[in-house]
Order: sequence, then structure tokens, then C-alpha cells
Amino acid sequence: MAEDRSPKPIHCKAAVCRAAGEPLTIEEIVVDPPKAYEIRIRVICTSLCHTDITFWKAKVAPVFPRILGHEAYGVVESVGEHVEGFAAGDTVVPTFLGQCERCASCASEHSNVCDAVPFVIGPGMRRDGTTRFRDARGSPLHDLLAVSSFSEYTVVDVNQVVKVDPAVPPKLACLLSCGAGTGVGAAWRSAKVEPGSTVAIFGLGSVGLAVVQGAKMCGASKIIGVDLNPDKEEVGRSFGVTDFVNPSQLDKRSVVEVIVEMTGGGVDYSFECIGVPSVMTDAFRCTKMGKGKTIVLGLGRDSDEVCLPSLELLFGRCVMGSLFGGLKPKTHIPVLAKKCMDKELQLDALVTHELGLQDINKAFDLLLQGKSLRCILWMDKDK
Amino acid sequence: MAEDRSPKPIHCKAAVCRAAGEPLTIEEIVVDPPKAYEIRIRVICTSLCHTDITFWKAKVAPVFPRILGHEAYGVVESVGEHVEGFAAGDTVVPTFLGQCERCASCASEHSNVCDAVPFVIGPGMRRDGTTRFRDARGSPLHDLLAVSSFSEYTVVDVNQVVKVDPAVPPKLACLLSCGAGTGVGAAWRSAKVEPGSTVAIFGLGSVGLAVVQGAKMCGASKIIGVDLNPDKEEVGRSFGVTDFVNPSQLDKRSVVEVIVEMTGGGVDYSFECIGVPSVMTDAFRCTKMGKGKTIVLGLGRDSDEVCLPSLELLFGRCVMGSLFGGLKPKTHIPVLAKKCMDKELQLDALVTHELGLQDINKAFDLLLQGKSLRCILWMDKDK
Repeated sequence: MAEDRSPKPIHCKAAVCRAAGEPLTIEEIVVDPPKAYEIRIRVICTSLCHTDITFWKAKVAPVFPRILGHEAYGVVESVGEHVEGFAAGDTVVPTFLGQCERCASCASEHSNVCDAVPFVIGPGMRRDGTTRFRDARGSPLHDLLAVSSFSEYTVVDVNQVVKVDPAVPPKLACLLSCGAGTGVGAAWRSAKVEPGSTVAIFGLGSVGLAVVQGAKMCGASKIIGVDLNPDKEEVGRSFGVTDFVNPSQLDKRSVVEVIVEMTGGGVDYSFECIGVPSVMTDAFRCTKMGKGKTIVLGLGRDSDEVCLPSLELLFGRCVMGSLFGGLKPKTHIPVLAKKCMDKELQLDALVTHELGLQDINKAFDLLLQGKSLRCILWMDKDK
Repeated sequence: MAEDRSPKPIHCKAAVCRAAGEPLTIEEIVVDPPKAYEIRIRVICTSLCHTDITFWKAKVAPVFPRILGHEAYGVVESVGEHVEGFAAGDTVVPTFLGQCERCASCASEHSNVCDAVPFVIGPGMRRDGTTRFRDARGSPLHDLLAVSSFSEYTVVDVNQVVKVDPAVPPKLACLLSCGAGTGVGAAWRSAKVEPGSTVAIFGLGSVGLAVVQGAKMCGASKIIGVDLNPDKEEVGRSFGVTDFVNPSQLDKRSVVEVIVEMTGGGVDYSFECIGVPSVMTDAFRCTKMGKGKTIVLGLGRDSDEVCLPSLELLFGRCVMGSLFGGLKPKTHIPVLAKKCMDKELQLDALVTHELGLQDINKAFDLLLQGKSLRCILWMDKDK
């Protein structure tokens, strides 16, 4: 009788979120084999992003128990039926956004939201809505964005897996799979920042700092960083910020007035990387009449509204949202990885901390206290 | 002694608005000679636009007495010092938006708001803030948008005057100088509608119908007209609307649901041509995730805000305002006039009424009652 070589369930460790805002628990879980069009990945490292915090606090799609995490790097362990172009051993990053490379949106220059297997916020694999995770008692564990990288193994749709050159450092590839990719992409692909243009970036967290690098890569001549934390001036300048504005230190002037004055009429491009509606409005109002473009990257509460003075909008200004910075994952992550290797992009300094998965709650604390930019969690560190 | 050939003040007729919302009065006025960089124009015809109504009701910049009107066609009567490229007898249209053709914004593909002599809403010639109009008692009369075309003669900055081929019918050139230009431009220049794309237009007034023609010219395959007035279906279809939605006749479904369903996920481009914030939000919400673009053309109240659900914005959607449809007046009006002459654009049916200037209050009534699209006012009709 022929040996059954089909993938089997894998028992491994994962950090499970059992209730909103509670510390994660490291548990033994079972990861099912990949179904058709799916890939099972051995996660090498993952990192913690503000979006994980948003789902952990259950601001959006509150379902538990759940395995969070969506920024990662790993190696293909096995592939399901109909998976082409991937084999065990390939170095990859999973992405929350898919790319089928065939549908009208994937073929269009103007969209990065695949029509074939569309992005959904809620849990469930995108083709059948089910989960590949069970806990030790056999109860299902929900996924996050169909990625769930706070686990030694995970299963991801083939559309959401990007092959990366094994020469790319794992930490770097990990960052590009969400936060840093979003920031650089927002300047490069969403705003299409031009050489010599002026830019304002509200919020110098890791996404904001990646926008700074993206704007610098695109040749922006003035890059204004805006943050309430005075410590952000130094880190901002190290990434490429040319001017720093702290809205809490402007006496009686508004940040909009100050930026309009600094730029003789407003910036060409502004980026909101915080997720606060009033900051979105400020970012909008400090752009130049006739061409100003504001890119909203921050994820606020589900019910938040961005309110724009209609008369100011009418003056030829533009506000756009950006999912993954307008990047098409399979097309653009390898391009950005190459730019990093060539030192055209410098993202290494986004990694401020490195821990093992077992210390994930410490990583949460660091991010919540504003002490980290990105904390890389290694699956094998001091295991 | 040499004869003084410099331009003298001209006594002529104009329709004067003496108080918000009051009927205009036909008065004898004095139009001063053009100063440096200015052109005095003998107006042949003008038309009434909703923006005139907005200023007449004093929703924006309430100053009186004032000569309204900003959509017109005429002949150069005389030019001031330093005016190059224009001579008496040239057929021209004045425009509320200027174009110096030299500044960074005029040189940029991305802006149509001239930096050199910027657009202002308030009254006053744009270089010195003064007026060229006086009434019979010698008291100054304010201008509108530095154009004031409800007068037999007017003085306009050289940046705001566009030469047009004398072969272009006066009515057509007049329409292109504001409303029709704005609508066609919004599809062509602001949205950059692509062949085969889907479009929704909220409000089938003259600007909305011009958007329909612009979208058709750009090759849109589905053009959805949205209007509460059932009579707009027939006129909409005659302009190129392929599908009509009346939000008041949808039983319990919202216009957003209906359009998303009709298009399998939302339109590529939507246009708000009414100026109502809630309609702006609807226009935004009926666009396609990942690429939808909403163009706001309607002028609401000064204090109005457009509110957008931030989570929906984040999904790669875009909202932009459009001043004069993104057209650079001197560059693009002649192009559109040529397209009209070649029947690539059909705007003639926008003219539903023609009257003499002395009947201007009738033109206001027709527009206020929704009975006209554009009413052309001829200076010489049955004078």
C-alpha cells in the first residue's frame, strides 16, 4: 500500500487571544493541512502592528478566541491542491491583501483590491469562511485577516502568499508584509509623490516613518514630520524628516496655519498615520489648493467619520484611503525588498525590539506604551 | 496736441443685485478702462449658473451692491498696459479661474489653480482688490469672481480671458466658460474616466448632464444618472445616460445598495453635482472598493461638511473636489470647443431658454423653479 504523503495536522505553539484586551496565552494548537489553493507556512518571525492591537481591543470584528498577527516571514511547509508556483522550502511572506493576478482589478493600474478573492475584515479563510486552527480541546480558533501569524504554523490562501528572495533578511521581509510596505507604498503608489514635492506626515510611528522613507525615495524636497511626542523629532530626522512640527508647542497657532506658512500655501501631499478623524481633517486642510492630496492610512474606530469642509474640498483637493499603501503584494513587495537590499530604502531602524513568541505580551506592552516601533517576535528565540 | 486714444470710461447697462435675494435692477452704470494686465470686454451673451444663485442668496461672500454673472462670451473692446496676445475685436470668454501659464501650478499636470494670480471667492480684481464698476451716482459696485458678466461691458484680468475661434457659436463658448466646462472637465480631467468604466452622476442639472457627455466622450460603458425628478430620465438618456435611478422610487432600498448591485460592487467613478453633503456621502459609498473615485462639484453652504465613514475610505477609495472640472482654461476650453464643433461633444441641448438681459429676473425664476438648464441672456436681444 502506497504511503500517504498528504499533509497531516501539525501540533505546535501559538499565542491565543481568548478575550478582548486580555493577555495572550501560549497554547498548544492544531493547524490543519492546507486545503485547495492554500499554503501552510512555518513562521520564522512575525511582528506586532497597531492593527493587531485594534483587533485585540475588539474595536473591529470582535470574535474570540482568535490567533492574531498578520505581519510575518516564513517558509512553505506544504501546499494544497491546485497551488502553482510554490513548493516546500520557498521563503515567503503572507499578506492580508490578496492578489490573484488575473481579475480586472489585479490587471488594472488603479486598484490593488483583488475582485476574485476579495479582502474581508471578518475572520475565516477567504474561499470558504472556515478556520484551520483548533485548540487542545478541539475547539476552533478564529484567524485574523486570514493570516494569523502569532503561531509557529499557519495556513494562508495562495493569493495571499508572496515569494521573496531568500537573500532578503527575514526581519526586513516581515516588515514589508504590512506596516513598512503600507507606509512606503502610500508615498510611492497611492500619492505618487514627485521629485521636489512637499510632504507632511502626521504621526511618526512605524507606518509614518516608512512614509518618510517612501517620500524620500520618491525625491520629496521637504518632508514635514508632525507628532505630539518631542522624542520623535530625532528619530524622524534619522529617517529623512527635514522639518518637525509638534502641535502641542505652537502657542496659539494651529498646525494647519504653521504648515501652510512653512510651505507657502500648503503641502502637495499629506499622510494621516494615526487614525484620528480630527487629525485627518488637519492633514486635509494643510494641503495646497488645486492639487493637494491627503492619504489616510490610520485605522480608527469602525464608526469614525472623516469630515471635510466642502468648500475647501471643492478647491481641487483630494482625500484618499489607502489599503496596504496601494501596493499589489506579489508585484511590489519584491521590488521594495530589492530597494532595501540596494539601500535605496532604509527600514532597518524600524526594528527597535526582538523577542521570542513566548514574550508576546511584553511586545504588546512596549507598543501600547509607545516604547517600540516594531518588535520582531522570533519563533525559535530561546525556545 | 496728440489725440488721447487711451480707453475711456464706458456708460452702459447692467443688471445690478442690490440686496440678497432681491430682483436685479437694470441700471446705467460706468465701466472704467482696463488697468495694467486687464481687458475690457463687450459681452455678447452670458448665462445664469447656480453659482450666481448662491452668491445672490448671499450664502457665500455676501457683499452688495454687486454685478453677478461669470459665464459669458464677448469681444475685446480695449486692453490695458502689458496685455500681450489680445487685441480689440478678439472673440473671447472670461473665466472665474485664471491661468498665467508661467507659475509652477500652471506648469504642473496636477493643478489648475494658478499660483501667480490665485482664485479668490470674495469680490475685487485679483491684482489690486478694487472694482471697475460704478453706478449712476458714482458709488462702487462689487464684482463677482472678478468676471461680472451681467453687464454690457466688463473688465477682466488677462489671466482670466481665453481666446476662442470666432467660428465657435457664442452660446457654446459661453457654456464652456463655466458650467459645461466644469462638467465635461470633471469626467475628462479630474476623474480621468477610462473606456469601459462605470459612472454614477448625482443630479442631472446642466453640470450633471455635461458630466454625462464628458463620461460618454471618455468611453464610459455604463452611465447611471441619479435624480429625484422623474422627468430627468428622458433628458438624461438624450445626453448619454444608460441607466436611471430615482432615489424616491426605490421602496426600502438605498440608492447606494441599488448602484452597488447594478454594477457588481460599485461604480468606478461617481460625481456629486448638487452640493448636498448627504448626497456626497452616498456618491462616495456607491464606488468600488480599491479604486472608486468620487468627484464633488456641487457648491454647498460655506459651513457644510462632507462626512465619510473612515473605514470605507481606507478601502482605497478617493474623494476629490474639482474647481472648473480640473480644466486649465486657456489650454482646455479651445480643445473642448473643437470637440463640440466636431460633434464629439453635444452640449447644445443644455440651452433651454434664451432671453434679453432686461428679462434676467425671469431667467432667475426659471432656474429656481427647475424649469431651465441654461438660459442664455443676449445683450442685444430686443433691446
